[in-house]
Amino acid sequence: MAEANRQIVLDQLPQGRLSADHFRLVQGERPTPGPGEALVRTHYISLDAANRAWMQGATYRSALSAGQVMAGGALAEVVEAPDSDLLPGDLVFADTGWQDYAIVPTKRLAKLPALEPRTHLLSVFGVAGLTAYFGLLECGQPKPGETVVVSAAAGSVGSIVGQIAKLKGCRVVGVAGGAEKGRWLTEELGFDAAVDYKAGDLRRQLKEAAPGGIDVYFDNVGGDVFETCLFAMNTFGRIACCGAVSQYDGEAPRHGPRGVPGLIVTKRLTLRGFIVSDFDDKRSQALRDLQTWVAEGRLKVHEDIIEGLENTPAALVGLLAGENRGKRMVKVR
Amino acid sequence: MAEANRQIVLDQLPQGRLSADHFRLVQGERPTPGPGEALVRTHYISLDAANRAWMQGATYRSALSAGQVMAGGALAEVVEAPDSDLLPGDLVFADTGWQDYAIVPTKRLAKLPALEPRTHLLSVFGVAGLTAYFGLLECGQPKPGETVVVSAAAGSVGSIVGQIAKLKGCRVVGVAGGAEKGRWLTEELGFDAAVDYKAGDLRRQLKEAAPGGIDVYFDNVGGDVFETCLFAMNTFGRIACCGAVSQYDGEAPRHGPRGVPGLIVTKRLTLRGFIVSDFDDKRSQALRDLQTWVAEGRLKVHEDIIEGLENTPAALVGLLAGENRGKRMVKVR
Repeated sequence: MAEANRQIVLDQLPQGRLSADHFRLVQGERPTPGPGEALVRTHYISLDAANRAWMQGATYRSALSAGQVMAGGALAEVVEAPDSDLLPGDLVFADTGWQDYAIVPTKRLAKLPALEPRTHLLSVFGVAGLTAYFGLLECGQPKPGETVVVSAAAGSVGSIVGQIAKLKGCRVVGVAGGAEKGRWLTEELGFDAAVDYKAGDLRRQLKEAAPGGIDVYFDNVGGDVFETCLFAMNTFGRIACCGAVSQYDGEAPRHGPRGVPGLIVTKRLTLRGFIVSDFDDKRSQALRDLQTWVAEGRLKVHEDIIEGLENTPAALVGLLAGENRGKRMVKVR
Repeated sequence: MAEANRQIVLDQLPQGRLSADHFRLVQGERPTPGPGEALVRTHYISLDAANRAWMQGATYRSALSAGQVMAGGALAEVVEAPDSDLLPGDLVFADTGWQDYAIVPTKRLAKLPALEPRTHLLSVFGVAGLTAYFGLLECGQPKPGETVVVSAAAGSVGSIVGQIAKLKGCRVVGVAGGAEKGRWLTEELGFDAAVDYKAGDLRRQLKEAAPGGIDVYFDNVGGDVFETCLFAMNTFGRIACCGAVSQYDGEAPRHGPRGVPGLIVTKRLTLRGFIVSDFDDKRSQALRDLQTWVAEGRLKVHEDIIEGLENTPAALVGLLAGENRGKRMVKVR
């Protein structure tokens, strides 16, 4: 007997700014797994700026195309996974897309540990936390006493980057939009200073917040913030290139940041791009560290949970506009 | 008794393109060293694109100012170096500037080995050779079978980079201006292919010359060539940022390469800027390798020697226009 499967389809690829109108909700049928496949039920959909980047063209995954169920990762429950060790009810992270039920290759699933709240499996112990950990520590290589600047600092990754940098003895400056977010960063999360990119004269603000220059810049945004930080880098500084959200939601940019590659030479900078799966071999240690810091109360976890599959498009549009603090996800079930 | 000291003064800082008119030749007096100082006599002045970059502002050295003797390094002979182990006649590399005689701090001088031709101390066994060696091997990390692209490939550094990459088992593509330089790279130096940036459609040319994409790009030029190579990089590719000569001789650029930092993330690239002195601790091994390769005939050395101090300005202007093949220097004495 077929059971309903609500699906959100990417109805058309955005040419400029993404809106909820680019999506539509359809009713499909609950699919049946074939050999090597599992049927999973979506619990929490992860929302990430990368969802928007996938619409621009091939990245580390193929470009999305119109008319298909919108792609995305989620915390999901195994319904059936024949020929595997997975049991019904097991929690997994899966590339479900935005729908109630999905068929996924069994070999790409791994059972997640039972921990509470389970949403942490999508935030601090999921892609966001591991991205922050590896990007900062492996690409940024911060040393005690150095100055770390992170952009999109109130976001899922940035809010963790800043806290880990503090744990490592660094001076931490967060770049975020609006004075209220800035207060949240400094008063709640322990950042040393915040810079409001919407308030203008970013160069002067950064100079005041990081008077000794920047040793590590964790970049989530690209564009003008990247350029301004590049000019403020110290000799032998490191830039962890994690994303370029300022460039995702609009036309293709006509030009890039000034100072590339000239300042990279004169300041002897290292820029390194990464995605979280590049560090799979170091994942266990990373999770142990993150779990310890959370358990000790030294790493605060903020989650922004939206209710209802039907609200996923608006939730992504809001994320791209900077609505969220910490990890945004959609509770489907 | 005062002896004449011809000096070339940077008469005015160029606002756009540099010309020989920005300099003038004056007659000074032979200076006398004070405590901790040595008097040296210039033999061969090293010409480098960096000479022009120093006129743009502070780099890894202070910006040049108008009215001073033009800065530059040279192979020089010690005339007197009181309170040191240096003897008259010893060869040193010194920051003499463009003049017959210079006073330099004794502690910054090191006696060079006696080898013939001594001009190799400025080319393959000097800054050019060491820059090629460290930039390629330390920043580029080429592996056998990978594709290495180098820009300004017919220049002092590029011509050595390409040959070392061949020694390491790579496929090597040189970017240079003009078909004749291209033939020289492939027929004389053993490059696998050459690309003529003056012939247009660099993207298509690169695609033909490096059909498998680029694993290591050694960048000497910045600008459009940098951008085109960035788009052709393979996943986990490395870019050694050595210079940006396309950006030195003109107005400050209004924008930088597209794809920064977006492509750095999606392709998981590493970009690293360097100057040769960053690797002083590995200098001995580098020189041993370079000497072995030259002695075995596996690394060809090309030098472009201009006669006469008075011709130094025109020689630098010509270097910026791409006149030279291999290391350009001026024989003063």
